[in-house]
Amino acid sequence: MSSAKYDVLGIGNAIVDVIARADDGFLGKHKLVKGSMRLIDEGEAERLYGAMGAGVEISGGSCGNTMAGIASFGGRGAYVGKVRRDQLGDVFAHDLRAIGVDFRTPAATDGPATARCLILVTPDAQRTMNTYLGACTRLGPDDIDVGQVAEAGTVYVEGYLWDAPAAKQAVLKAMDAARAAGRKVSITLSDSFCVDRYRDEFRQLIRERVDIVFANEDEAKALYQVSSFEDALAAMRAEAKVAAITRSEKGSVALRGGETVAVPAQPVARVVDTTGAGDLYASGFLFGLARGKPLAECARLGGIAAAEVISHVGARPERPLSELV
Amino acid sequence: MSSAKYDVLGIGNAIVDVIARADDGFLGKHKLVKGSMRLIDEGEAERLYGAMGAGVEISGGSCGNTMAGIASFGGRGAYVGKVRRDQLGDVFAHDLRAIGVDFRTPAATDGPATARCLILVTPDAQRTMNTYLGACTRLGPDDIDVGQVAEAGTVYVEGYLWDAPAAKQAVLKAMDAARAAGRKVSITLSDSFCVDRYRDEFRQLIRERVDIVFANEDEAKALYQVSSFEDALAAMRAEAKVAAITRSEKGSVALRGGETVAVPAQPVARVVDTTGAGDLYASGFLFGLARGKPLAECARLGGIAAAEVISHVGARPERPLSELV
Repeated sequence: MSSAKYDVLGIGNAIVDVIARADDGFLGKHKLVKGSMRLIDEGEAERLYGAMGAGVEISGGSCGNTMAGIASFGGRGAYVGKVRRDQLGDVFAHDLRAIGVDFRTPAATDGPATARCLILVTPDAQRTMNTYLGACTRLGPDDIDVGQVAEAGTVYVEGYLWDAPAAKQAVLKAMDAARAAGRKVSITLSDSFCVDRYRDEFRQLIRERVDIVFANEDEAKALYQVSSFEDALAAMRAEAKVAAITRSEKGSVALRGGETVAVPAQPVARVVDTTGAGDLYASGFLFGLARGKPLAECARLGGIAAAEVISHVGARPERPLSELV
Repeated sequence: MSSAKYDVLGIGNAIVDVIARADDGFLGKHKLVKGSMRLIDEGEAERLYGAMGAGVEISGGSCGNTMAGIASFGGRGAYVGKVRRDQLGDVFAHDLRAIGVDFRTPAATDGPATARCLILVTPDAQRTMNTYLGACTRLGPDDIDVGQVAEAGTVYVEGYLWDAPAAKQAVLKAMDAARAAGRKVSITLSDSFCVDRYRDEFRQLIRERVDIVFANEDEAKALYQVSSFEDALAAMRAEAKVAAITRSEKGSVALRGGETVAVPAQPVARVVDTTGAGDLYASGFLFGLARGKPLAECARLGGIAAAEVISHVGARPERPLSELV
């Protein structure tokens, strides 16, 4: 295996976040489940946007946030995802390229608009996400450059991509290319409802094709349909090569073979908006792995990145993560 | 004069801000004058955007920010400004309507895109603004509903509108309608370079058509081409009915006939981004006037609004101003 041009190549839904404050009454009125992500169509996106308060637009997308984190640590990243050629698509592309992430996927010139995620942040700092996938549904196998994939130490993908059938085919092509080149494959389970939708496929992937799995506690429990964290850990250990499981204020637990490390959460003066916590955790962990750090250090880097991003509105780092380690 | 449906009807350049951090070296390299606003064409907007870092998109525009402030105080506002029917135009319209500002100006269906202001915030919290006016140049007299203008206690306009000839005609039509209905007319001088461009017209307006003038210290000095603040005050007193002059950390001075009040600045724990300070000062002052408050209280409300908006990134209030008074 040759040395890698990129530490990580990420594949994800290319989304611009629209973040607004809301109270619990708003969530109740619109039947939204706090802390979850749901998919909405264009009509519902317009309806909900019309009802919600004034917002801030910031580039997002789970994997896009992770790649921003890797770049902020000083890592080398590439991103594959589909926007449309429109104003929000231009914003998304600009924001990734401006931080040094190699982003070459051609924008769609027709079809649905660039994806948006309407994020409602409640006073308890929890985020509730409503995603209109738009142009993301146009990502397909032709967007995967197998030569580029082979130049990345790790290919990292979102579980969310399973919601777009052609995107899933793109992911499987990239996974094959990575394995053929002797590279690593990593996945995040994304969301417990997403796990419910694709449980069997995700479990098979973890057993057969994936080297590093990211999940939060709820997702790990949902994957193995168990009610205790210990049972989820035991099941994950039996099937995954490397796993990192985040537990909010309880920190994270990382597994590799017989090795288990539990790392406490970094202190945060005030939690403002938890959007992106898991995405940024993955960025620190993957950056650590790429630099050959011990498992506990990878988990610590993940915690540092997560702590930074929950301290402010928006899911990408405001301060250079390289200065925080 | 009947009671007013709106406290204030504002007319302004309808702009979405793109805010990114930059250092002094970046300003130097691109020959930008810190703290100023300059107009750029579409090509320069693309070039500068390509060079600047990852950004946050937030609805802005000087007068739009002021109207957001008035709504946040609990005031009743209407806004007139021109966007194009595109993604950023939808964002601008949504954000005003979501806070209760009546915004009915039809979006342009062709021509240039919705205006953007590329704002570079340096570590000293100063903002340097680069405005592509886009669709704002399409605002014209036909966009002024004289019946609506007559329903507003005060019509408030930006000096920046003089940069678009048709918009200036729209403003003059609105001023005439306001005077005919026995309403007040207010203007902000916007920027010292803007004052340099339209000095004679602004002075004539203040003498003949305007009831309330807003300026910062630099703009007031530029208007009368004097070097001391005292000389600027004396000149303003001789020509303006009511004037409010802001002085950053020195607070503000308000004039009405022989009355002069100096009000200290509100304390701010950390100045993050001064974008919108003058716009929000105007919102508090105008809200106070609309509620019949004494001059000193109007200036104090202006200071409270300015202090809130410079405590965070973005030029519109994050906390309800009605809770801060």
